Order: sequence, then C-alpha cells, then structure tokens
Amino acid sequence: MQAANTPRTDLALEAREMITKQVSQEVPGVLVETSEDDEILITRVNITTPEAERLMGKTQGRYVTIEAQGLRYKNTPLQEKIMNYLAQELAGLAQLPRDATILVVGLGNWNVTPDALGPRAVDKIVVTRHLQDMLSPELKGGVRSICAIAPGVLGITGMETAEIVHGIASKIKPDLVIAIDALAAASSHRVITTVQLADTGIHPGSGVGNKRFGLTQESLGVPVIAIGVPTVVHASTIAMDTIHTLQEHSSFARYFKSMENLTEQDRQVIVRQVLPDTLGDLMVTPKEVDRLIADIADVVAGGINQAMHPGIDYENIHIYLH
Amino acid sequence: MQAANTPRTDLALEAREMITKQVSQEVPGVLVETSEDDEILITRVNITTPEAERLMGKTQGRYVTIEAQGLRYKNTPLQEKIMNYLAQELAGLAQLPRDATILVVGLGNWNVTPDALGPRAVDKIVVTRHLQDMLSPELKGGVRSICAIAPGVLGITGMETAEIVHGIASKIKPDLVIAIDALAAASSHRVITTVQLADTGIHPGSGVGNKRFGLTQESLGVPVIAIGVPTVVHASTIAMDTIHTLQEHSSFARYFKSMENLTEQDRQVIVRQVLPDTLGDLMVTPKEVDRLIADIADVVAGGINQAMHPGIDYENIHIYLH
Amino acid sequence: MQAANTPRTDLALEAREMITKQVSQEVPGVLVETSEDDEILITRVNITTPEAERLMGKTQGRYVTIEAQGLRYKNTPLQEKIMNYLAQELAGLAQLPRDATILVVGLGNWNVTPDALGPRAVDKIVVTRHLQDMLSPELKGGVRSICAIAPGVLGITGMETAEIVHGIASKIKPDLVIAIDALAAASSHRVITTVQLADTGIHPGSGVGNKRFGLTQESLGVPVIAIGVPTVVHASTIAMDTIHTLQEHSSFARYFKSMENLTEQDRQVIVRQVLPDTLGDLMVTPKEVDRLIADIADVVAGGINQAMHPGIDYENIHIYLH
Amino acid sequence: MQAANTPRTDLALEAREMITKQVSQEVPGVLVETSEDDEILITRVNITTPEAERLMGKTQGRYVTIEAQGLRYKNTPLQEKIMNYLAQELAGLAQLPRDATILVVGLGNWNVTPDALGPRAVDKIVVTRHLQDMLSPELKGGVRSICAIAPGVLGITGMETAEIVHGIASKIKPDLVIAIDALAAASSHRVITTVQLADTGIHPGSGVGNKRFGLTQESLGVPVIAIGVPTVVHASTIAMDTIHTLQEHSSFARYFKSMENLTEQDRQVIVRQVLPDTLGDLMVTPKEVDRLIADIADVVAGGINQAMHPGIDYENIHIYLH
Repeated sequence: MQAANTPRTDLALEAREMITKQVSQEVPGVLVETSEDDEILITRVNITTPEAERLMGKTQGRYVTIEAQGLRYKNTPLQEKIMNYLAQELAGLAQLPRDATILVVGLGNWNVTPDALGPRAVDKIVVTRHLQDMLSPELKGGVRSICAIAPGVLGITGMETAEIVHGIASKIKPDLVIAIDALAAASSHRVITTVQLADTGIHPGSGVGNKRFGLTQESLGVPVIAIGVPTVVHASTIAMDTIHTLQEHSSFARYFKSMENLTEQDRQVIVRQVLPDTLGDLMVTPKEVDRLIADIADVVAGGINQAMHPGIDYENIHIYLH
Repeated sequence: MQAANTPRTDLALEAREMITKQVSQEVPGVLVETSEDDEILITRVNITTPEAERLMGKTQGRYVTIEAQGLRYKNTPLQEKIMNYLAQELAGLAQLPRDATILVVGLGNWNVTPDALGPRAVDKIVVTRHLQDMLSPELKGGVRSICAIAPGVLGITGMETAEIVHGIASKIKPDLVIAIDALAAASSHRVITTVQLADTGIHPGSGVGNKRFGLTQESLGVPVIAIGVPTVVHASTIAMDTIHTLQEHSSFARYFKSMENLTEQDRQVIVRQVLPDTLGDLMVTPKEVDRLIADIADVVAGGINQAMHPGIDYENIHIYLH
Repeated sequence: MQAANTPRTDLALEAREMITKQVSQEVPGVLVETSEDDEILITRVNITTPEAERLMGKTQGRYVTIEAQGLRYKNTPLQEKIMNYLAQELAGLAQLPRDATILVVGLGNWNVTPDALGPRAVDKIVVTRHLQDMLSPELKGGVRSICAIAPGVLGITGMETAEIVHGIASKIKPDLVIAIDALAAASSHRVITTVQLADTGIHPGSGVGNKRFGLTQESLGVPVIAIGVPTVVHASTIAMDTIHTLQEHSSFARYFKSMENLTEQDRQVIVRQVLPDTLGDLMVTPKEVDRLIADIADVVAGGINQAMHPGIDYENIHIYLH
Repeated sequence: MQAANTPRTDLALEAREMITKQVSQEVPGVLVETSEDDEILITRVNITTPEAERLMGKTQGRYVTIEAQGLRYKNTPLQEKIMNYLAQELAGLAQLPRDATILVVGLGNWNVTPDALGPRAVDKIVVTRHLQDMLSPELKGGVRSICAIAPGVLGITGMETAEIVHGIASKIKPDLVIAIDALAAASSHRVITTVQLADTGIHPGSGVGNKRFGLTQESLGVPVIAIGVPTVVHASTIAMDTIHTLQEHSSFARYFKSMENLTEQDRQVIVRQVLPDTLGDLMVTPKEVDRLIADIADVVAGGINQAMHPGIDYENIHIYLH
C-alpha cells in the first residue's frame, strides 16, 4: 500500500481520490464529509493519524475544498455564494477573537500569470492595521486588524519567503497568518473551480512554484491557514491520465494483451518521450488564465475580507480599499 | 493518403513531418531545403501545387522556419543571431524597394499572455512613417516608412481584425503588410524556439486565438508576410502524443494485441475523457511564458526593424523608439 | 474684445468663465443653462454664432459639463449618479434609433497615465457588434451594436488617429462615433471632477496629447460626440494663476504701483523663468492619478454603456464584458 | 537666520542653494565640492555640524548629487556614464568588503507612477544571495550577496515600511541597507535629471509619499545609504517660484511699491487661492513620466549592480536577471 507514482496534486481531495482508487477502500485515519447544493460541493477531509499522513502525502490536519464548475464562467451571484462559503469555512477554521491581528501573505511570482494568485488576492485585501486608531467604536467591533504583503519569490528577492515572513511576523506579532497560494491539480476540471483551505499551513514542494520552504505553526510560532486555488495541471499529468484512461476503459481492452501490467518505468519512458525534460516545467492552463486568475483572486480576497471584517458594509467595500 | 486526425499545428514544418511519417515518403509538390549551424536550423518549405496544399492543409507558398532550442534560455548573442537570420529571410521574402511603406499588424489578445506576441512585438517596432519629412537624406536611404498597430481581437473590439486592417490599409496604402501572430505547435519542444515566416499571409483557423478571418493578398490587395512563433501546444496534442508514443515504441509492443488498429474514434474518446470539452481550450505552455514571450517579441521586432531599416545604428536603437 | 493670453483649457465652461470675466458681460451668441442638486452641477453651453465661436476659441455646438467635487473620493453611489446623468445627456445629444451602430474610439496614449483615459474607458465598453446574431429578440431591443477601439497615438503607430478612424469607419459604416479623450483644464479643482460631452467632435490642439487632427462630422462623414474628462492642468496655468491672484486680490494692492498694467510679455517672461521650455510639457496632476483615472474611466464607460444598451441588466453587467 | 518657508525639497543641494541665497553667504558647517564635465555635474555636500543640520533641515552626513540635463532624453551613452559615476560614488560611500551582504529596499507605491521609482529599480537589481553556493570561485570574488524587496507603502500593507524592513533585516543580518526612493525637488529642471546618494538613510517626511518613518542606522542597526531621484515638484512650489520671480527680477520693479515686503502669510494666501487644500497633493511631473521613471530606474539599478558586483560582465547582464 504505497502512494508513489501518482500524479502531482496539491489538493488533499485529489490525493484521497487517487489512493482510495488504488487500494479500493477508504484510507484509514482519513475522515471525509461532504455537503452540496446544486452548484457547489464542499468536502472536508481530516487527516487524523501519522499513518494517514504518510499514505496521503499530506500533513495531518483539516482540509476543506469548495468546488463549483461555474467559477469558470463570469457569474457574479455564484462568485458571491463562494465568497460566503469561504468566509464561513475560514471563520470556522480560524476561531479568532475580535481584537486579533492577522497577517495575510500572498505567495507566488507576480510575473508568472498562473503563479500570481497570491499577489493578486493580496491587492484586494481590506488592510486595516494602520487605521485601528481612526475607526469609530461601532465599526471597530466588526473590523479586525489586518496587514498584508506579497513578498515575492526567491528568484526575485534572493530571500526565502519563509525568512521574510518570519522576520515580519517577529515584529508584527500576528495572531494568525493566512497564506494564499496558486496550486497544481491532478485533474484539469479542478483548475480555477476549486478553493482549498487548510489549517496545516504551507509545506515544502507545494504550489505552482514548488516552494522550498514551509510556512507553518512550527516555523512561524503562529497558526497558519493556507488558502489555495489550482491554476495549473502539470503537463505530465495529462500524459499519465491518457495512459490511465487507456488502461481503465474496458472498451479498449480488445487492443491489449496486458495493459494493466504496464510498469511505472514504462509510463515514465512514455511521458519523457512526449515531454522532454529539457523543456522545463510545462503547465496546462485554460487559455483565458489571466482573466480567470483575476476573477478568482477577487473571490478569495472577498472571502477573507468577509470572514475578518464582519462589520463592513460590502455594498460600499470600495471605500475601504487603498 | 489523408491528412486528417493529425494534431493541430500552425507550422508547415510540422505538417510536413506528420504527413511524411504517415505516408512514409516525401509529399509530392512540397520542396524542402535546410541549412544549419551548431545552434540554429533553418528549413524552407515550399508548397508548390494545389494537391500539396490539400495534403498539407497549408496554403501554397513559401514557409521558412528558424529553430534554436537555446531561445528558451536568456542568451543575448543567440537572440541577436536569430534576429539577423530573421532579417535576412524577411528581406528575401519581401523584396521591397527603399521607398516602400509597410504596415505591421500585431494580431492576438494582449490580455491572454500566450496570445500576446503580436501586440508585444508591435510595441518594439521602430515606427517611422510620421517622421519621413524630418529624416536627414543620409538616414532616409536606410529607414523605410513603417507604421504599426495591434488592433485587438473580435471579443475586445466587436470588429473582425480583417475589417480593421482592411479599413486602415485602404487609407494608408502600404506596399506590404507584415502580420505577427502567436501560433500553436504540435511538439512542445518547438514552443518559443521556432520562428516561422510565410509569404502566404494569415489564414482562417490559425493562431492561438483560432482566427475566423484571413489577412491575405486576396483579401487586402497587398502582399502579406506572416511571422509567427508557437507559444502553446494544445493540451489535446499531449494526449494524442501519448497514445502515439505507446503505439510506436516497439518496446511496448508486448502489451498490445493490435494497438496499431486503435481507431481514430477511440482516440477521440480517450482525449475527451482526459480533457472534457467543458473546460474550454486548454493550453500547454512553459511556466515562464510571460518572460519568454517578452524575449521572443524582442527578437521578432528586432528582425523586422533590421530588415526594414538597414540604415539604423542598432547600438543606438533606443533613440528611435517611442 | 479678444480671447488671447488666457490659460489653456479644453472645457467650454472654463473658456466662457474666463471671457465673461475679461469682458465683464455674457458672451453674445453663447447660451448657458445650469441645473444642480446638492452634489452635482450640470451646465449646458451652446455656442450658436461664428462670432461666439471666435471669441470662445471653441467650435459652434453644444457642450454639457457634469461636475461633482465628490468624484475625487471613492464614492460608489455618486459615481452611479454621474453615470446616470451622463447616460441621459449622451442619449439626448445622440438621438439614436434602436438599430444604430456606434463606434467608440478611445483617444490618447496608454503609456502616459494622464492621457490614458480613452484606452482605459474603451476596455470597459460592452462591445456587441459581433454578437448581434446571437442576441435573443427581447435583449436585442435594448442592446445596440457597439464596436470600440483604442488606436494609439501618432508616436506609437506612425499614423494619425484620424487616418485610422477614417479607415475603420469607411468599412464599419457606423451611425455615430463617440470619441473619449483626456483633457486639460484651467483650474486644478476641475481635474477628474468634471465630464464634458460635446456634439462638435474632437478638434486639433485639444486634449492632453494636443491632437494634431480633428475627428468631426466633416472629416468622418458621421456625427461625432466627444466625451472628455480633464486629467491635468498645464504647469504654466499654475504660474499664470499665481500672477492673476496677486493682481486681483485687493488686499495685496498695497504692494503694487500698477500691477494691473503688467504686460502679457512680462507674464510670459515670468512663466518661462519658472518653467524653462527645455523641460517639455509639465503637467499638474493629483498624486493618485493612476487610481483616479481608473475610477473615472469606469464612470465614462458606464454612462456610455447605459445610454447605448438600455436593455442590459446592470446588476449583471459583467456577463457582457469580454 | 532661519530656513522656514522655503519650498519643499528632498535634495541637500537645493536646500543649500536656497539658504545661501537667503543669507547671501555660505552656510557654516556645510562643506561643498563640485566636479564636472561637459554633460555632468557632481556636487558633494557634507553637513558637518548640528547647527548646519538645523539650518539646512537635513541630517548631518554626506550627500552626493549627480546631475545631467541630458537624462531627460533617451541617450544610452550618457545613461551608462551616469551609471558608472553612480557606481563609483556608491562604492566610495559604502566601503564594503567583498563578502558583504546587502539588502536593497525599493520604497514607494508601485500604483502611483511618480512614486514607483523604488519598486521599478528593485526589479532590475541582480539578486544573488540565494546563488552564493552555486557561483564559481572566480565569479564569487566579483559578485556580492544581494537581496532586494519592494515592501509597498502603509496604505497597501497596513505596516510601516520600517517595521517590515526591520523585521527582514533582523533575519537576514545585512551589512548594509540601500534604500531607493522617489524624491520631490524644488526646481522642475531637476526632475529626473539628478540622482542623490546620502549616507544618512531615509528620514521622516521625505520622498514623494512623505514617509512617516525613518530607515537609518539608528533604527535598523545597520548603515543605510539612500539613493533618490526627484520625480515631482509640488505644485505649491510652482506658485511660490512665480512670486519669487516677480520679486527678484529688477525689470518688474517698476510695478511694485514694496514687493520685497510681501509677507510669508500673504504668500500662503495666494498659494491656497491657486491650489485649494481640498485637492490633496498636486504634483508637477513631465508628461512622459511613465517612460522617464522606467529609464532612470534602469540607471539607478545599473549603478548599484556595478558597484556591488564588479566581477559581472555587463555585456551579458541579462543572464543574471531573474
């Protein structure tokens, strides 16, 4: 019972799907709960044991995904609904007192469109830490102290994001860090249509940019909630999926002697043939990724704003934006 | 002998490769000539008969591709070499008198990174039509009258690009139109590494944005040279390639009874399974596509500038840029 | 009775103010009408005679300005009110049948922030000309055929904007051209706070970029409505204003022998001293001009959208945007 | 002997000019030294006493300005010359060992064009701290360990820039901080044409954005060199200059009884009349400020790169850029 050789995914939801498929049973120590309406599916995956952590390749903790295929299309009412759910789930995970200070960190590279979710979302966060003394008492009750930064990636700053965030957190002393990041999914239909929240923080190797560092309660000394949206599928995942589809469709069985025995090594040979290593990281994204990232960054920032500032009148949200 | 069911490509070079592979012989009516040095391969494909046009799925005419894998990496000397070759090939195809007026058109959508090559290159064109009266006689001999526009795509303007260009050309009366466009390749290793010039203009269905219109000598009444660079591979091409690789590698033969008989219909079923239609157009691009497009747009514009303005001192090119 | 030596302004409203001040009476042939509420002042200036045209330095025709100091501050309800007034005034000037085709032209240079109003507003226009066949009959009644382009300035394209627009109009055959442009005001308090509509089109010398061309019914063969917003005051206007203020305030009279006799030539000497010609065009803008232009571009585009597409549900306007 | 009521400037050079003019003598405790060639003027101002600090309104320390009117025009050879001088002066002020670590901080707001110099320059810094282990021994000798960040302004992050930089410096422990900032000048002819270096760091109230904080050796525990370029003149400076010009030109004397007695209060009345407070901060900038800032950011970054990395081959500088 081994999790190797599965396509790369940052979604706990997909990791679980792949493993349950491989082993044809639920993964022990992984609790799953879903709720849905006609447009939206919410899945809560709780990884509760070290063994489950090992099998899933995901740190112990709670993962919530909110999925809606409709997010691909400009659809303001659906976007607001997702914002509301995101705000609820975030408030549930964070459990913050009214006077908490929160540091929102937008991870990723603003010069690489599919990696720019974090910086774009941070642009839309209603930042209030510097206004605390100016807020009226009524407003103050519903507006938490938020600060935010998109620190840039290692190649741009020469500093690990974790170093920068650690340094800032040591001065600001936030009660919570929220880290926003662009993710890689295993299935192209989850790209831009899924938001994942996790109370585990950010772990090395995750994200579009393959973080080398972690942003976790251990490393920062403060709880870290990660919010991510898949914006790409690795091209190798498409090739892998094609082979799997060939193997699994019984209607193709007549072509094969023993396709189920195709070795992992053979699979790697095929993928390398189709996608030579020399090309660097090839990503599969929707053609309109620039617009889709802008839209989903609004949804993510909107959900955070709502969860953190329940007292703001969102009809007039623009008043609060820099 | 049929060209159907081959992966989508805008490169005549790749179309020819695919067909010669299918039919195991050279395509009649298609003349091919190559030259190379250690870093660069130039291929000239001349489609000379209507039958060759039909087989290749590409209009009769001359296609030149300049390929260099090194274009993926920041490498100024190689970029300059490619600029020089591009300038030579363009001058050869265009055969312009010194007093010609040229309209450069940047096709594609500036809001969609992999489709933005045309607009980005137009930004770097040394525009001179409005300066003709101010140029000194010595300079005038080496500086042609260039004007340039990136008209935007149908969804942005509500007008077909062909309508806009036709309208402008009817006022400006250029001797030549050069149309720059982002293309789709069949092989991921050609993305950003290949520049194609064609004296056939732009044909419907081509380009990243799948043009609905043509920009040709017939439609505009003026010769049109198309310059394109592949910036994407369609995701379906990756899936198709995976199947082909499985079929072709003799080392996998032991798994199959009769894989060579896999029907085209079966192939489509697999691709649709892996890449549901509902996702719209999925593109495969290098992760750093934003930077790569900026770099290659410089190369394309540099080559055009050199071919059109042989008298400009390129050490001081910035003087001439708006 | 001469209009010379007055500060540069593109607003008919300001031209009239200056002349009535100089000659201490209403200008013959200029009809003025105002209406206001607590936040907004609408002024309709009608220049009805060639003599009035000469005195005002503005072409005969109707000019409507909508002013609201509050536009400087993020204030969504006020912005919507201005949009509504703008839509009404535009509908009144345009008098278009339901099946009209309109070409919206965004003038100015997108690389020069205070000149970028036109291109930014065009980005937000609901373009529909290419969708006419796809609209349901109910919707069709309330959605006119709109196309739009930001052609760029002479230094970018090598073509006069008038050539480009003329060429396109000769193909598209619109019933009306709406030209959006950034203007220069004489008073800094009108920057970003005033929208001017004029049924006279665009005349040479106007706008932040000092157009060399006209876009008028005479030149295009189609009615042209100009919509402009002042985004700058020329720095020389600040210097001139300072001298005027010195001259006019009776409290400063004790300093002067005969300040009212300060010659125009002396004034020019002072201004040239303060603002040497070698510096090129110096502009006075609010520090947050980038944000203010984005906001006012939304208002201008919103007003045009509403006037042209009375049947669109503006709660869901995003559905219609590219 | 008092420095009040002088126009606002961030240049020590201009502060000195104004005071020597007012008091008609050199300022005691301020040492000045100039050198020049036909295009470039270098002035070294050394404020050596607390009394000089009080008079000048500038912290004790060394200020070097490099001026060249030609910087307004695209002129690559001049830009390179300025880069070289800047590199020399910076190396002279910094006196760094080869193995020093330097943190470059780009101050200012990237959303406000004239305040964006710092962030734009940081984009061009050759960042190397993360590559130290990968450099060949030969290269290592000529490439210092540089890291860089543009932290954003208070309104964007909710955090004082000083808090962020302090936090980061406490983790990174640099040997030197270089802070790049956009400045305000008193004379429009110094806008974009002057680079100032100062070993005093950044002080509250300086810069286009009027910093509320300081970045100094006292606050950070590390030497701080400030590099700034004036990008604006406050509009009030234009009004003040106009009054001064009137007062000072003997040719206007015939108009006045006693203009030299114009009180400071009267001057304020005039300026407020011309530029009402309600308009917020009005800035005077060249029309092409977007392009000019991009060009001068290249010069500033180029000078820093050269001073810090003497061993890099600047023909191939692009290789090192992210």
